[in-house]
Amino acid sequence: MSLKDDALKLHADHRGKIEIALKVPCRDHNDLSLAYSPGVAEPCMEIAKEPKLVNVYTNRANTVAVISNGTAVLGLGDIGPRAAMPVMEGKSLLFKHFAGVDSFPICVDTKDIAKIVELAKLLEPTFGGINLEDIKAPECFEIEEKLKEIYDGPVFHDDQHGTAVVTLAAILNALKVVDKDLKDVTIVTSGAGAAGMAIVKLLMDCGLQNVIMCDTKGTIYEGRTEGMNKYKEEIARKTNRALIKGNLAAALKGADVFIGISVGNTVTSEMVQAMAEKPIIFAQANPVPEIWPEEALKAGAAVIGTGRSDFPNQINNILAFPGIFRGAFDCQAKEINGAMKIAAAQAIASIVSAPELSADYIIPKAFDNRVAPAVAAAVATAAMDSGVANKKVDPADVAQNLRNLLA
Amino acid sequence: MSLKDDALKLHADHRGKIEIALKVPCRDHNDLSLAYSPGVAEPCMEIAKEPKLVNVYTNRANTVAVISNGTAVLGLGDIGPRAAMPVMEGKSLLFKHFAGVDSFPICVDTKDIAKIVELAKLLEPTFGGINLEDIKAPECFEIEEKLKEIYDGPVFHDDQHGTAVVTLAAILNALKVVDKDLKDVTIVTSGAGAAGMAIVKLLMDCGLQNVIMCDTKGTIYEGRTEGMNKYKEEIARKTNRALIKGNLAAALKGADVFIGISVGNTVTSEMVQAMAEKPIIFAQANPVPEIWPEEALKAGAAVIGTGRSDFPNQINNILAFPGIFRGAFDCQAKEINGAMKIAAAQAIASIVSAPELSADYIIPKAFDNRVAPAVAAAVATAAMDSGVANKKVDPADVAQNLRNLLA
Repeated sequence: MSLKDDALKLHADHRGKIEIALKVPCRDHNDLSLAYSPGVAEPCMEIAKEPKLVNVYTNRANTVAVISNGTAVLGLGDIGPRAAMPVMEGKSLLFKHFAGVDSFPICVDTKDIAKIVELAKLLEPTFGGINLEDIKAPECFEIEEKLKEIYDGPVFHDDQHGTAVVTLAAILNALKVVDKDLKDVTIVTSGAGAAGMAIVKLLMDCGLQNVIMCDTKGTIYEGRTEGMNKYKEEIARKTNRALIKGNLAAALKGADVFIGISVGNTVTSEMVQAMAEKPIIFAQANPVPEIWPEEALKAGAAVIGTGRSDFPNQINNILAFPGIFRGAFDCQAKEINGAMKIAAAQAIASIVSAPELSADYIIPKAFDNRVAPAVAAAVATAAMDSGVANKKVDPADVAQNLRNLLA
Repeated sequence: MSLKDDALKLHADHRGKIEIALKVPCRDHNDLSLAYSPGVAEPCMEIAKEPKLVNVYTNRANTVAVISNGTAVLGLGDIGPRAAMPVMEGKSLLFKHFAGVDSFPICVDTKDIAKIVELAKLLEPTFGGINLEDIKAPECFEIEEKLKEIYDGPVFHDDQHGTAVVTLAAILNALKVVDKDLKDVTIVTSGAGAAGMAIVKLLMDCGLQNVIMCDTKGTIYEGRTEGMNKYKEEIARKTNRALIKGNLAAALKGADVFIGISVGNTVTSEMVQAMAEKPIIFAQANPVPEIWPEEALKAGAAVIGTGRSDFPNQINNILAFPGIFRGAFDCQAKEINGAMKIAAAQAIASIVSAPELSADYIIPKAFDNRVAPAVAAAVATAAMDSGVANKKVDPADVAQNLRNLLA
């Protein structure tokens, strides 16, 4: 059978990928008298007196809402909230498998930003955190901004920040391979949506000075009028200070790093050849990358990453979001801030070091069980250091607990 | 330790009672390529073409939203959506344990009827059905009515219909014990909230002619002005045709059956003594019944039921809602209608028959594994017969599949 047939069969045979499981016994009247009537009244009354105890007596503090309206699903675009369900169930599967984080798909049938924000806020008693997923830009930025202000718990848009964290990790190690420094290089992106914006902001927070973002209209520069929005205008004031105009090829001349988070086949051999020496190419479009690794290699690329598992250096969000939420939940972080994201990226990068570090191995594999515990510990540490943790934990315990779970 | 300590410890040690579990393997890149990227795109695209396939390729068709705003929790009243969480997690535990139905607590932080209705409707891509829980009357009636009109899937308010189904089952068997007929007896209720209203309507659908409902203001009669709402006015036109005014004691004179769904200690020995011969007393208030069984027995009660597991004849919703949703889901019922509720009650009653049927055993125990399969099969049959099933199933298969799951 083909991948298509296998994938459809898997989903139909199991009717989806996640289910509910019991954490407490339910064998007899005695069990029931504690877990349900009459004993359940006790935690209810405790929480009624002190609402924060919902994080002690229920699963809330370990539960993430995976919220999507299906407007930007995978490479498929606006396929709607029902068609997005398999992805959100998949996300829940990954949260649980890689980090013991419980999550539930919340696919909402609206494109109205205010309604999505209100719905999420209304569900605050149920969910300890929010993972926004596959919501199109720029709506996703506004939803995230508003929820970060009003929600009691971490709010994270994985398409932005998960991608940014993993890309930063890959960049940190790729630069070691080519012996360049982030603050000296020029990076060009193809794509200025959710992922592109977040990648550039996080890289700049880490010292990147020179960056040119491109979208379908070409380079983004201050003063451009076509195809702009407030987020692009904001980034235009901080990037491309030489005000380079033109297409992606123009931007790539002399650049050190290409980051593609757009669509397949947008970069040619000639464009790679026109880059600086030892160029780094991250062609992350899926399933067809901006340039195929073999072609980029022939054109002189020194390090190549893609979004695919069948080539070296898969830049895969799975490395980031499970451990990030594990770390944030373990220390009861109020938010997932820049320091925590950078710590996560450094933790991912640190898994691969000399002598293993090479052009073909800059980033760990998805199933490397060292990753999530390292990320969780680093994120919890950064949360405590930056003052957003409500609970003090030993990062070594955070890592060890997750290792035990994964063993 | 006390029940209180044990219950708090159980909830705190496990941090709640439910978690997410995986239905498909997640061992390696091959598993991931089917359950997540890139294979997950296949079911997504199929659902994008035909939205109904969300019920084939995801867990939606087996998933119930347990929606509450915490305004009428157990006997605790309006304790809010956070304090309601332990009950909703408990409900999810029972749905799974007794019927293999997946459900998720949706505790919403609002008392605004329109917002609850809108939120539920927005979540239609995620949930195949809705179980409303512990929402106070009369708001719960309006929420249920509106959702029944607009939601794609069964909508069920357990406090109303679950209680009504189990009470009807108990009444059917209690009347056999005292050799009376539903169409001849007079039934008096104490309580005219969600449960009381639903019980009376369901009993009347089954032939009951004479019923008097009482609330804190006394008997409900046509023309009463104090403490009425549109639901009480509607029921007043169909009940208490003798227009009996006064308190519960006045109503109970000569009555055959008392159904209490109110508060403890509202019925005295004298009131029982003033009833017709061989009176049936269902004192369902929890934890303190309207009259203690021993006292009612001394006063001449022929059959006594309560809401407690430590007396005979516990009238317990657990007997109804898991099997009802199992049956409704198995035949993809559009709704849970009157015929399905009556079928469920008859199935529960049929578990206890001569020679076991007696004053001390009119209704099966909560952990009787014959109940949910019988209810599920009866409900599926009634759904198909009444034309609300989207799928034809063999009721024997429905029962056997659930028996296999429970074994």
